[in-house]
Amino acid sequence: MRINDDRLKNNFEALSQIGATTEGGVHRPTFSPAHLEARAWFRERSESAGLDFQIDNAGNHSAVMLCANSDAPTLLLGSHLDSVPNGGRFDGAIGVLSAFEVLLTIKDEGIKLPFHLEAIDFTDEEGTLHGLLGSEALTGILKSEDLISPRGGREQFLSGLAEAGLTEEGLFSAQRSPISLAGYLEVHIEQGNRLTNAQADIGIVTSIVGINSCTLTFIGRADHAGTTPMDERLDASLGASAFTLAARKLVMRDFPDCVVNVGAMDFEPGAFNIVPAGVDLSLEFRAPDDGTFEHLKISLLALAEAEAHRYGLSLKAKFLGKHEPAPLDPDIQEVFKQAAESLDVKAISLASFAGHDAQSLARVCPAGMIFIPSVGGSSHSPREFTEWDDCVNGANVLLQAALNLVNSYLSIQD
Amino acid sequence: MRINDDRLKNNFEALSQIGATTEGGVHRPTFSPAHLEARAWFRERSESAGLDFQIDNAGNHSAVMLCANSDAPTLLLGSHLDSVPNGGRFDGAIGVLSAFEVLLTIKDEGIKLPFHLEAIDFTDEEGTLHGLLGSEALTGILKSEDLISPRGGREQFLSGLAEAGLTEEGLFSAQRSPISLAGYLEVHIEQGNRLTNAQADIGIVTSIVGINSCTLTFIGRADHAGTTPMDERLDASLGASAFTLAARKLVMRDFPDCVVNVGAMDFEPGAFNIVPAGVDLSLEFRAPDDGTFEHLKISLLALAEAEAHRYGLSLKAKFLGKHEPAPLDPDIQEVFKQAAESLDVKAISLASFAGHDAQSLARVCPAGMIFIPSVGGSSHSPREFTEWDDCVNGANVLLQAALNLVNSYLSIQD
Repeated sequence: MRINDDRLKNNFEALSQIGATTEGGVHRPTFSPAHLEARAWFRERSESAGLDFQIDNAGNHSAVMLCANSDAPTLLLGSHLDSVPNGGRFDGAIGVLSAFEVLLTIKDEGIKLPFHLEAIDFTDEEGTLHGLLGSEALTGILKSEDLISPRGGREQFLSGLAEAGLTEEGLFSAQRSPISLAGYLEVHIEQGNRLTNAQADIGIVTSIVGINSCTLTFIGRADHAGTTPMDERLDASLGASAFTLAARKLVMRDFPDCVVNVGAMDFEPGAFNIVPAGVDLSLEFRAPDDGTFEHLKISLLALAEAEAHRYGLSLKAKFLGKHEPAPLDPDIQEVFKQAAESLDVKAISLASFAGHDAQSLARVCPAGMIFIPSVGGSSHSPREFTEWDDCVNGANVLLQAALNLVNSYLSIQD
Repeated sequence: MRINDDRLKNNFEALSQIGATTEGGVHRPTFSPAHLEARAWFRERSESAGLDFQIDNAGNHSAVMLCANSDAPTLLLGSHLDSVPNGGRFDGAIGVLSAFEVLLTIKDEGIKLPFHLEAIDFTDEEGTLHGLLGSEALTGILKSEDLISPRGGREQFLSGLAEAGLTEEGLFSAQRSPISLAGYLEVHIEQGNRLTNAQADIGIVTSIVGINSCTLTFIGRADHAGTTPMDERLDASLGASAFTLAARKLVMRDFPDCVVNVGAMDFEPGAFNIVPAGVDLSLEFRAPDDGTFEHLKISLLALAEAEAHRYGLSLKAKFLGKHEPAPLDPDIQEVFKQAAESLDVKAISLASFAGHDAQSLARVCPAGMIFIPSVGGSSHSPREFTEWDDCVNGANVLLQAALNLVNSYLSIQD
């Protein structure tokens, strides 16, 4: 059995138009007009195809195929339709479309499953507001204290929810019982070079790295940029700049399995003729396991303190959102491996350096994930691209894995 | 003859309320509501005092005392009522109020002058839009090409003019004939420590440094901040940070008479989880003479190119506004010196590291400027402060200098 290649492609091309940028990517930050339009499009296509559709209180959108036994659990297949600002067409979208295509194929074939099947589009995977918001709400990982300082700011968080007709309190009622979840499977682009380098078609993900983000504020003193002697300034730009360079050196030297990014700086007051009194620096770092994750955090903070001190500045650190490292289910990895073998596509195992909704699901049910190759390794960019044959491979492996899970599910029930 | 200390203080306190910040300074960027309110207040006070009031096509606001001979030239006294964002109460304001107080005192005393006397508040001294906009328009220095890329951005420039009921073309009609200008005198806070260190009351300004501002854009490539290996990134933050640190070192080592400031950085796209594709860096530098000014510019650009190259980035430089170094009139310096001596206040001579409207006027008429001490040297900040006795000294020296100019004016006419 194979998915319908043409239908998948038509859907991909239609979806890519929504929020399309002149550079060839899409701009669909969570709850932006383009994002809401993409979700409305998903709903319309699902209902046109005769599938049930549901939206939960975290805004997660799902096409649903119910089985005869209403008490049966649900096998979730999914990803996300939101993008980073000025992002690419494949990240998230190909996962939702592959999941949707699996439902359509199984419906076409008239196969009766022993569990409900659901193609889900999770809210705010990319972190416009909080990151993995929809999957953390569904799994009950989300806590009210996580929302006090969401990484996109409290104001944007609340106005975003309002835009989508959601409420902060309501988010928590999207939680589902773990017993209702048979498992979770996700297809995603690799966003790196490893599959290409290994000449592999499919990457079976073994674990997902932990991600932590924080705002470091370097605080100096505003002064006239002409009359204040250079050596009397308390210039916040110096601490922020020195930290940016030193953090990169630290990670490359002492944490070769980790990455760090300074994604933005915001200068206060931000005028040509005023020595900067403050710089808010947006920092994100990732590590593959708990021990390294904590060691990296402590090392980066110590470095920031040292660079602030060097230039007579003070430092504040505000942590905004953390996703723990998440190992994925070994049995699901094996199911993916067999599915790939049966389809004669080459699969390798690897860890994910990007965060994904699968890490939320892994906390409450058997969860697994496969990657398809990213040309040039680019993502979060309009240059993001995956060969169409690889997209089709991904959807077929997903279909085969879902079908294989029927057997393992029935053997457990017996 | 002395100015009216109480009246000057009442006016200063009333003006300080307009745009007052909780930190104790004022926020009156050009054409902001508070700036327009300050100008309306100046007009109301002037008209209440029975002075003529005029507003030219560059928005310059003037209280005017005409002399009997309508063909006589005008002695301008002035400064500016705009502030930097979150600035201090004294910068500019004390100069306009001192000029206004001189007119009121001469009116009270019933003195008939051989020239018109005008207390002028120049538009946009601080560079919210262009910098020295009003004085450059009045003197004819302003050229239409200066307004293609004003330092505050073209959009803000046009909307600011509209807010004040001005037009871009109209600005040029504010130009006055040099023959109509008898001279220009300005009182301003020092914005530095030199008067305090020399235990002097008055600084007689010998020249004003040149100021150049530009946006340096470091261009890299947007990539996923998790999956892209650290050594494969083209991270624009690295070039911007390295330049910021190196520019400071360069100036402190090779250009001890100059200063440099990185006042802001703007990251593109500016997300936690995307490697920065671009950073716009707001650069300003100042030098005391033409040769050093040009040498510094070339050195900073070479440094930016080198740092961009080091991190695989490209560089664009966009120059936004330049004010040439300006020597002030030696005769006016002498007039100030004699005025200070006659009032028994200690005066020293010094160069100005801040730009001032006097540098525009110096191009077309005899122009001079005095400083009064800044406590702690702070300015462009709410911490800006000048002792009240020093403010009174400044206004009295200005009054005495204006009166002394009557004698030199009459001796020339004879």
